[in-house]
Amino acid sequence: MLMDKLEVQLGALQRRCIDLKIPVVILFEGLDVSGKGVQISKLVHSMDPRWFQVYPMKQEAEAEAMRPFLWRYWNKLPKDGEISIFDYSWYHAVTSEVFRKKEMEHDPKVLRQEINEFERQIVDGGTCLIKLYLLIEHDEQYARMRALGESKSTSWRVTPEEMRRNEEYDAYTRLVDEVLTETDTEFARWNPIAATDRRYATVKIYQTIIRAIEKQIDEVLKKADQAEKKKKIDTTKIGESILATVDLTKKLEEEEYRKKLNKLQKKIQKLHGQLYRRRIPVIIGFEGWDAGGKGGAIRRLTQKMDPRGYAVHPVAAPTDIEKVHHYLWRFWTKVPKNGHVAVFDRTWYGRVLVERIEGFCTRKEWKRAYREINEMEASFVEEGAIVLKFWLHVDKDEQERRFIERQTTPEKQWKITDEDWRNREKWDEYEVAVNEMIEKTSTPHAPWVIVEGNNKYYARIKVLETVINAIEKRLESEDKK
Amino acid sequence: MLMDKLEVQLGALQRRCIDLKIPVVILFEGLDVSGKGVQISKLVHSMDPRWFQVYPMKQEAEAEAMRPFLWRYWNKLPKDGEISIFDYSWYHAVTSEVFRKKEMEHDPKVLRQEINEFERQIVDGGTCLIKLYLLIEHDEQYARMRALGESKSTSWRVTPEEMRRNEEYDAYTRLVDEVLTETDTEFARWNPIAATDRRYATVKIYQTIIRAIEKQIDEVLKKADQAEKKKKIDTTKIGESILATVDLTKKLEEEEYRKKLNKLQKKIQKLHGQLYRRRIPVIIGFEGWDAGGKGGAIRRLTQKMDPRGYAVHPVAAPTDIEKVHHYLWRFWTKVPKNGHVAVFDRTWYGRVLVERIEGFCTRKEWKRAYREINEMEASFVEEGAIVLKFWLHVDKDEQERRFIERQTTPEKQWKITDEDWRNREKWDEYEVAVNEMIEKTSTPHAPWVIVEGNNKYYARIKVLETVINAIEKRLESEDKK
Repeated sequence: MLMDKLEVQLGALQRRCIDLKIPVVILFEGLDVSGKGVQISKLVHSMDPRWFQVYPMKQEAEAEAMRPFLWRYWNKLPKDGEISIFDYSWYHAVTSEVFRKKEMEHDPKVLRQEINEFERQIVDGGTCLIKLYLLIEHDEQYARMRALGESKSTSWRVTPEEMRRNEEYDAYTRLVDEVLTETDTEFARWNPIAATDRRYATVKIYQTIIRAIEKQIDEVLKKADQAEKKKKIDTTKIGESILATVDLTKKLEEEEYRKKLNKLQKKIQKLHGQLYRRRIPVIIGFEGWDAGGKGGAIRRLTQKMDPRGYAVHPVAAPTDIEKVHHYLWRFWTKVPKNGHVAVFDRTWYGRVLVERIEGFCTRKEWKRAYREINEMEASFVEEGAIVLKFWLHVDKDEQERRFIERQTTPEKQWKITDEDWRNREKWDEYEVAVNEMIEKTSTPHAPWVIVEGNNKYYARIKVLETVINAIEKRLESEDKK
Repeated sequence: MLMDKLEVQLGALQRRCIDLKIPVVILFEGLDVSGKGVQISKLVHSMDPRWFQVYPMKQEAEAEAMRPFLWRYWNKLPKDGEISIFDYSWYHAVTSEVFRKKEMEHDPKVLRQEINEFERQIVDGGTCLIKLYLLIEHDEQYARMRALGESKSTSWRVTPEEMRRNEEYDAYTRLVDEVLTETDTEFARWNPIAATDRRYATVKIYQTIIRAIEKQIDEVLKKADQAEKKKKIDTTKIGESILATVDLTKKLEEEEYRKKLNKLQKKIQKLHGQLYRRRIPVIIGFEGWDAGGKGGAIRRLTQKMDPRGYAVHPVAAPTDIEKVHHYLWRFWTKVPKNGHVAVFDRTWYGRVLVERIEGFCTRKEWKRAYREINEMEASFVEEGAIVLKFWLHVDKDEQERRFIERQTTPEKQWKITDEDWRNREKWDEYEVAVNEMIEKTSTPHAPWVIVEGNNKYYARIKVLETVINAIEKRLESEDKK
């Protein structure tokens, strides 16, 4: 009777989540044989199957192993209104895998920190995150394992590794305790579930989830109420502008450019092969004024690289699928495999540039983005990536000259639109945003490089040289190890 | 000089393809060490890197091995305006792999046929498909392999298998000849490229691609000219309607329904486990009148299955990413892994139903779709899948009753929209389309099952029983082997 009521309630709440476009993530973690599988089946019983997906995450595929730790989870985050249920989750790596004391690819301390950052980011982004940990006692665990082991049809379900965790129950649960304590944050609380009694556990799980979703719905409705936000645009004076100090007179003559270009492209071709063999991923972001020369610089950068080892991602307005995900999702899903190069023509910095200026996100959202972006880039670097960001800088006169050239050259007309002229009118607002961006997101591990772009030859060579230097530095430091 | 001209020409053509939204697929196949890698690098040299992607396809990932042969290629088809370059392609499986005489997962004869179908489908869908085969002589191949083998830094590039193919050059090229002859169709011609002289080969490749793209552009422009197509809607009289013969008085009482439901759900739960262990994929499509009971039937079908082993895909209007792909792309990419169940709530038959009725595609396109769909389903079955299609049938009165019930029941109001009423007005047109669909796409390997749906209980049980029977039949026939 109670269960019937809870099922109806959860079914109705799922419908509300769809209407209100709330993405829900439910983690099932727990001790071995605590019954996660059964509980997940009971849970989805009441749900509309078109709007949830269960992900068994115990094993990692090769494509996943070749990318940052959190990549596989970012890929499986729900769209707005959907529910993703994880059977095992990002906690597997910091509990079972640590306990196994196997050669860890990652430092567990760093992973825990990344986990906390990740959870904060998705919760801040509007996800209803529900973390469940199923607990059973030592004796009960032993009894269940024995029962499974006795029947031929179920004995495969208990591995020697699981038996060992039962033998060392105290030590293992101490580790779990420690992890749960450290990741029990104000934005993502843990819900321990006593799972010895299965019926009791089911009720408890339903109640926990119902309460969490109800709370989220309340918050969403409250926010919608206050929604008459004044999209205040920041036009604080430019102050100490980093951009203002850029020396735009730097230039290169054509002959010298051709010579250097040829030499540098050959060099990067060779380095690209070394990156591949050493499995080092490279992430390069390009931002800059319209007509700043991004396209040309990217072309020269990649031209001689082996095309099987790099991809260029043009970033425009988000597609409808991207719109119903966290704003960082579309970049996470494009993280290169180890040994590959990903070049982004415009980047995740759109959040603090165009989205800020045009009011496509709230002030609170873009303010928060600096930290989130720094965290994301740090994750990439932590996994061994080289991360570089270029701001292609030209002055306003040069931009105008190029716009006019584009309009009057038939082959270039496709490059210029009315929107470019409109953006130009907001030059000062952008300058404020760019300065703040560079100030807040230029980190030692992922520095901004401002490229003096009035002279295209100079700019292209600077980009190539910067990338080459970063790769060489990295290869040297690996050699020393 | 010639090359400079060709590069400029190809660069400009790429731009035209972007503007005209033409997807381009270029296959690089060829004998070992014929220089595919070098030629690809030379080719992309002239291209805008934001609009092409090179896919090295020699090795198959695990996720790919678990799905139909063509799945990995469907996944990598270009969006409109993009270029996908395949370094090795679907021909690898019917040449090198056959020659290796390894335990073939697929019958090469069937694969060749599927390849021809696949190529026809994408070409009909507007893709510019260019197939290149690089040839070198026996001696030259030997000399290149020896040169590579002599240097420590390159010797890894020649495998024993490749050496063997050099030793048996005549036998191998005979096989290649045979495959090329059979797949040199009027819609997808082969272009043999003499690749001994690298410079010559580069020129030839550029010229071949330029000619092919120019031809495609011509055709696209010609079609656009004739584009004032009269979207004639077929309202030929219903004639011998299959639907008209359906006995909609069939029903089940609630008590019997509950009993049967419980029993059948338990059964399917068990069968689901067996499918998983035997790695049999299942694809189930649901079509039917609005309010025909698809959602409820799907719910009862999946309710007791292990949620880690199935996914329900609701199919609505295509997203913007789906719109810039072949109409079958979004279904191919959702093909279940071996051992998993995929349920589609509305399906690829939208092409011959709503798209036909609403004029979202041309008459030629939906006429062609019957064959394309049959081919696609045959591919799935060929790979070992069980494919079932349900038409949930109700009569017009019952539909009206349900529409009104939905409008007057608060929890059900989300299920009914103005569009549903509009569709209802086109009942007769749909009936023509449904009859034609069932007639043309009910195949022995993927039959249509018409479900008498006026009584929901009866309908749900029929769906469950049909699925169970199909699975049991399959398991039995496997046991006999």
